[in-house]
Amino acid sequence: MAAWLTALERLARSRAKAGLTRELRPRPADDDVVDLAGNDYLGLARHPEVVAAAATALSAYGLGATGSRLVRGSTEAHAELESDLAGWLGAEQALVYSSGYLANLGAVRALADKHTLVVSDAYNHASLIDGCKMSGAETVVAPHGDSAAVAAVLDAAPGRPALVVTESVFSVDGDLAPLAALHEVTSARGALLLVDDAHALGVLGPQGAGGVAAAGLSGAPDVVVTATLSKSLGGAGGLIAGPRQIVRHLVDTGRTFIYDTALPPAVAAGAHAALRIAREAGDRRALLAARAEQTVRRLGAAGFAVRRPAGAVLSVTAPGPEAALAWAADCRDRGIAVGCFRPPSTPDGSSRLRLTLSAGVSDVDFARALDVIVECAP
Amino acid sequence: MAAWLTALERLARSRAKAGLTRELRPRPADDDVVDLAGNDYLGLARHPEVVAAAATALSAYGLGATGSRLVRGSTEAHAELESDLAGWLGAEQALVYSSGYLANLGAVRALADKHTLVVSDAYNHASLIDGCKMSGAETVVAPHGDSAAVAAVLDAAPGRPALVVTESVFSVDGDLAPLAALHEVTSARGALLLVDDAHALGVLGPQGAGGVAAAGLSGAPDVVVTATLSKSLGGAGGLIAGPRQIVRHLVDTGRTFIYDTALPPAVAAGAHAALRIAREAGDRRALLAARAEQTVRRLGAAGFAVRRPAGAVLSVTAPGPEAALAWAADCRDRGIAVGCFRPPSTPDGSSRLRLTLSAGVSDVDFARALDVIVECAP
Repeated sequence: MAAWLTALERLARSRAKAGLTRELRPRPADDDVVDLAGNDYLGLARHPEVVAAAATALSAYGLGATGSRLVRGSTEAHAELESDLAGWLGAEQALVYSSGYLANLGAVRALADKHTLVVSDAYNHASLIDGCKMSGAETVVAPHGDSAAVAAVLDAAPGRPALVVTESVFSVDGDLAPLAALHEVTSARGALLLVDDAHALGVLGPQGAGGVAAAGLSGAPDVVVTATLSKSLGGAGGLIAGPRQIVRHLVDTGRTFIYDTALPPAVAAGAHAALRIAREAGDRRALLAARAEQTVRRLGAAGFAVRRPAGAVLSVTAPGPEAALAWAADCRDRGIAVGCFRPPSTPDGSSRLRLTLSAGVSDVDFARALDVIVECAP
Repeated sequence: MAAWLTALERLARSRAKAGLTRELRPRPADDDVVDLAGNDYLGLARHPEVVAAAATALSAYGLGATGSRLVRGSTEAHAELESDLAGWLGAEQALVYSSGYLANLGAVRALADKHTLVVSDAYNHASLIDGCKMSGAETVVAPHGDSAAVAAVLDAAPGRPALVVTESVFSVDGDLAPLAALHEVTSARGALLLVDDAHALGVLGPQGAGGVAAAGLSGAPDVVVTATLSKSLGGAGGLIAGPRQIVRHLVDTGRTFIYDTALPPAVAAGAHAALRIAREAGDRRALLAARAEQTVRRLGAAGFAVRRPAGAVLSVTAPGPEAALAWAADCRDRGIAVGCFRPPSTPDGSSRLRLTLSAGVSDVDFARALDVIVECAP
């Protein structure tokens, strides 16, 4: 066997020993598992209006966009979605990407270069971290959720162009960044604030417009927002929203925008239908808040320390990676899908179950899911 | 206005002066333009079987995958597609990504780290260049298509782990890398060869299995292939194919695989239907070859120096970015879509029209398109 393959096998054995092997488990379409693992928070991925809008666009446009946005891939489905995304988020303009990962890479690189000081929250998503790396900027990792620490870093480099990068609702533990405090810090110092609102869009804020809107920062000229179409909107793809100048800049120069095939028009049309529903889905958001409460109560009564989540994501610590894996497997055997997060997917190196709430799960199934999680605990 | 927005406006004005502004032009579904700009080489994006397969999966699974591949996003549609992709390409395994950009980032980073010497073709795609940058490897840019130059770079660093990165059919000019010669160079020196086969898949090789297959390198244990589902397969997404150990490694450690929402199952199912058609589409491939010939003849007779393309992409040089833009605009006004490539999208800084051939265009429309391109020339 080639030497590099032997080396890869050696690495795979070390990961297996450390309990860090990952398995793809393809699910069938009629999987009747209760889903506390996915990100379909509002339960819109299978909503009849969403599926119908996508089906109509699929018939009209065909499967793919057939090219990058600038060459052949921009359709009216993309333009209409972008216009309503901007309106929803209170931003001047929005730009859709084929994935949230590429949107984050594009956003950080547009806002930071080798002269910029970037301050990045310690728990930021891989795509933001990679964006910082690719920007060539000096990046200081700030303690998680600590606006005073961010201020101190900026104050140590007065007058230097600076960018502060954070998520709103963090993807593993579900806590909320102190966005208003962070914006006070950045705006007082002439720095920009980039917020990945992926896990808050549709869940928090007026009409579900996200964590930035909830913090009163919609349309601020020094805030840029990224998000995904793949969570509350039930589809796929990412977006950047902000002042028109940043969208212009990304269309002209953004590598991950220019050199990437466009999101399929059918997916854009489906996400657009989901957006229209999500704006008016106050009932679904109220259900998520009630379920967050119910989860903290049920798991708390069983002896687990669970923080009240800001949105629809929370985590429960496990004793170690193998215990987390066994816990999740036992839940799955009893028909409950939960997320199992182990290094390197956890920001602090500890392992946990990640639970996500979805308005698409029935009350009975949800209550049963919580029971199963408690009963399967290590 | 905030200072950073003023600065962005200044940059936008400089780009406008240099003729480098880019415009999104959303197209309607019933656009009757003759398409010599997109990458739907085999004309499968609107094929009834492709659309039907996607529609069935859309009804069954809903719009999105609802999570990353490891959490909730892997479906039977993904697994079946990956199995047939591996079979088609003659690789041990294949892994599907939500975009080709992310697949390339993942592939380079899996094969190179800070100890690796990377040799990258001067005309490589932005996603490969970004992958080299993110890997932290020392990267030497080799002259375009020059296997002797690659050998010289490797020979200057004997014994060092090395990776050679190239496209097969290059995306702008449509020429083919000397894959057999490159593999002789890499295999004799214990280096790995990464080939982005995006523009050759479906077009070249036995049963359209791509440029790597055409060069007799399918299944070689020191070759890794990337490609897209968005060109000949008419869909969206990317893939990596190679030895099972590299797929195992990517599933366990690949950031752009792990931390990204999965490709929508409907898109995977549609691309899978396209794959089944593409394997048997010898007639469509013959048509593309005949049209390549026809294009070179027609444009050559009109006085343009056009190289015979290896696949279904070719380019015609324009006097400058503004002339290229005007040429493409005049063609569009007469119902013909062509690509207009200007810096920084061109590897050598010159501007050109990029023409793509599609088996989905009728003979009459294609002949008219060539006439219009000649008549609109600056």
